[in-house]
Amino acid sequence: MNKIEHVGIAVKDLEASNLLFKKLLGVAHYKTEEVASEGVKTSFFKSGPNKIELLEATDANSPIAKFIDKKGEGVHHIAFEVDDIEAEIKRLGEEGFIVLNNTPKLGADNKLVAFLHPKSTNGVLIELCQEVKGTEETK
Amino acid sequence: MNKIEHVGIAVKDLEASNLLFKKLLGVAHYKTEEVASEGVKTSFFKSGPNKIELLEATDANSPIAKFIDKKGEGVHHIAFEVDDIEAEIKRLGEEGFIVLNNTPKLGADNKLVAFLHPKSTNGVLIELCQEVKGTEETK
Repeated sequence: MNKIEHVGIAVKDLEASNLLFKKLLGVAHYKTEEVASEGVKTSFFKSGPNKIELLEATDANSPIAKFIDKKGEGVHHIAFEVDDIEAEIKRLGEEGFIVLNNTPKLGADNKLVAFLHPKSTNGVLIELCQEVKGTEETK
Repeated sequence: MNKIEHVGIAVKDLEASNLLFKKLLGVAHYKTEEVASEGVKTSFFKSGPNKIELLEATDANSPIAKFIDKKGEGVHHIAFEVDDIEAEIKRLGEEGFIVLNNTPKLGADNKLVAFLHPKSTNGVLIELCQEVKGTEETK
């Protein structure tokens, strides 16, 4: 795993939190994106080589809505950048981690993503993400 | 803020979690350290330019013991690297964030640290950290 690609934070009000994190990080978010399949609106901030992703639920069945109902606002997941997501899924499955999707899916920020269940990772939802080839990240 | 310096994860059993995160990250922890003033034993893993810090409570009054009692194991804080912690404390206080210690204190990994209360940061405990000058990080 190359680095912490981003940390995802569940928020109730994306607009208000965009202002808050702008004050905190000293920079504004550089993009927003809706991932309809996950029921979320997201925004991204740069922090050097890393990013902060804020996530707001767009409907009551969104994993983010359920997370906030249960735990309140806060850190939702840590995403690690990998070079070969399929190889990492295979390796981690063999190591005993619970991979939530064995086939990578298209997530926010032009990434192929897969998740590891927090039960197998000390309560931390882990995302693996790999840049989709042949495209360029929005700056 | 230069980057995510590390993400801190509260764990019940540091030895077991060191093995778990070795499998996850593909590298072993490179050091352990006890911070008696905080009632914690910690271990550090590299992930490219970032680190993962695992924290186990050494007594029942440790903030980590209280965190796990309340929320279970999981992400405890996000630490951002800053160049001038005193300037950042001043700036963030003026922006309305609740700074838990206005005077930086010596934390793990040879850093001066200060914390922002999660109430003012969308439920996320934020650590600011600055490398102590004139010393070199343990490799």
